[in-house]
Amino acid sequence: MSDKKYNVAVLGATGVVGKELFNVLEERHFPIESLLPLASSRTAGSEVVFKGKPLKVELAGKDSFKGVDIALFSAGASISKEFAPYAVKAGAVVIDNTSHFRMDPEVPLVVPEVNAHAIKRHKGIIANPNCSTAQMVVALKPIHDAYRIKRIVVSTYQAVSGWGKEAVDELEQQVKAWVSGKPIETKILPKQIAFNAVPQIDSFVESGYTKEELKMINETKKIMEDESIAVTATTVRVPVFIGHSEAVNLELEKPCSAKEVRSLLSKAPGVKVMDDPENKVYPTVLDCVGIDDTLVGRIRKDPSVESGLDLWIVSDNLRKGAATNAVQIAEELIKQGLL
Amino acid sequence: MSDKKYNVAVLGATGVVGKELFNVLEERHFPIESLLPLASSRTAGSEVVFKGKPLKVELAGKDSFKGVDIALFSAGASISKEFAPYAVKAGAVVIDNTSHFRMDPEVPLVVPEVNAHAIKRHKGIIANPNCSTAQMVVALKPIHDAYRIKRIVVSTYQAVSGWGKEAVDELEQQVKAWVSGKPIETKILPKQIAFNAVPQIDSFVESGYTKEELKMINETKKIMEDESIAVTATTVRVPVFIGHSEAVNLELEKPCSAKEVRSLLSKAPGVKVMDDPENKVYPTVLDCVGIDDTLVGRIRKDPSVESGLDLWIVSDNLRKGAATNAVQIAEELIKQGLL
Repeated sequence: MSDKKYNVAVLGATGVVGKELFNVLEERHFPIESLLPLASSRTAGSEVVFKGKPLKVELAGKDSFKGVDIALFSAGASISKEFAPYAVKAGAVVIDNTSHFRMDPEVPLVVPEVNAHAIKRHKGIIANPNCSTAQMVVALKPIHDAYRIKRIVVSTYQAVSGWGKEAVDELEQQVKAWVSGKPIETKILPKQIAFNAVPQIDSFVESGYTKEELKMINETKKIMEDESIAVTATTVRVPVFIGHSEAVNLELEKPCSAKEVRSLLSKAPGVKVMDDPENKVYPTVLDCVGIDDTLVGRIRKDPSVESGLDLWIVSDNLRKGAATNAVQIAEELIKQGLL
Repeated sequence: MSDKKYNVAVLGATGVVGKELFNVLEERHFPIESLLPLASSRTAGSEVVFKGKPLKVELAGKDSFKGVDIALFSAGASISKEFAPYAVKAGAVVIDNTSHFRMDPEVPLVVPEVNAHAIKRHKGIIANPNCSTAQMVVALKPIHDAYRIKRIVVSTYQAVSGWGKEAVDELEQQVKAWVSGKPIETKILPKQIAFNAVPQIDSFVESGYTKEELKMINETKKIMEDESIAVTATTVRVPVFIGHSEAVNLELEKPCSAKEVRSLLSKAPGVKVMDDPENKVYPTVLDCVGIDDTLVGRIRKDPSVESGLDLWIVSDNLRKGAATNAVQIAEELIKQGLL
């Protein structure tokens, strides 16, 4: 990389992902010339912290993106729809963390460890995948390349932070109410989340799947660039603050042993294998918070089908599932000379 | 049924399942002549409540079962191994809630809605299945009969009460510690369970599966009386007090629609369908606590495989997963004239 530095804007600066974006930009020493935190009128005027210094959050408007090189969007799909065209027109590259552009055939959907090459064909907007999809494809791509994945059956255990700050507050309030014997109130999430497991993330579509499940099904195929992979998903919210866990069952074309997969994944970029069950080594969300790697354990042959494999995939949904992947895309733009 | 009444002993009277057994015996008006609560020296001498009256818990010994017609065992596998022969010798029928006898070919493993006929061949001991298996087979048997299940991929979301009273206390203590800013201590469960999802229930075997997963795999085939059903499972503990949830994916021999399955299950014994996603109707553990039915929702076609089906199965692990099923077996013994 050259010594060039970039003007970066963050739209949705005060949300859970926005805050994590500042952490990740700092930790990864992203070459920043200027940093512009943007938000809606609800939180504009407040302050965020970057490299220990307070930055005032500006109100996002159509003229906010003048001189911006990279605009990281994480303020909801409707905000992306409204503001992305202004940012692109102003000459910025938008890296969008919402669902709005992900399945647009004109927009690359990128997880750098999987399909960094797709960034090249961007026309101003690059989509960041859904959190539960990003961590899964990082772990599955090396397996797909070596053994070809025919079918994926995934069940998720997803943290409340995936639904934003208000959902985090709701779990905290519910737990505190329970401890102090007060009634538990549910306002943001579809059902009480404290001491529960709720099989609804996002809204339902006619087939009976949720939009979150369809994201996992459709985005996996787009990022892996293979429409022949069959996917079904059940996405479930659990009372966890940060970190998504996934029980993933694979049907492969070629047979493999757990040992081979362990060895393969231990060399894979962005993956850390934690898999020694005899010594109680397997990942949980307590291991993943604040790190960029996707953790994989419980790798075992599934004898219920020819060439079956079970695994357990855990990652910080605010990092690899959102902020880290977005910054990695920005790094790739620089690396590929596209900025 | 005649008006005959029976002498019933409960071994493990002070545990979470023991207490639920007293509730279920009372609610279902089980014809009791005498009720004898038994426990180890740790809790013998304490009191339990049945029909509003206190009963003293006696110390279990080899002579405890004289005159007992039905002995409900729920005090751990090693206790069952030690005391079942005494109970059988004394002429009692043992209904054992532990894993000890379940896979013994001489011992019927029974979920009355599925294989009540198997009770006939008992030789003094009848095994009650693992909690996560019991609720699954109640919901799957009608589907198997109508469409034949070729393969099951199940991921569970299991409550701490499945690991006993000490695990319930541990979740409570961890949550209270978190609220008051104190360190979280883990003693009973393999990892911190508050705000986590832990993919270990029971110990690991060489294949990488846990014993809990093997219970689901092996017991399902035995109860459904069909070794050809392929099963894989990932069993996960979540911070829930009571109620197991299961994301179940099925591959069927014959095609079916979600509507057909909904209609089939709505007539099935022991099953209650809660499946109207548009109106946010699907079961969670908050719906199942204290009731005997297994709740099923999120029924949908899985297009990732020929004749695929996804469903979400929820039940009170202390009721259908343990106490209710044991009492139902006792009722069947009476109904079939086997006592």
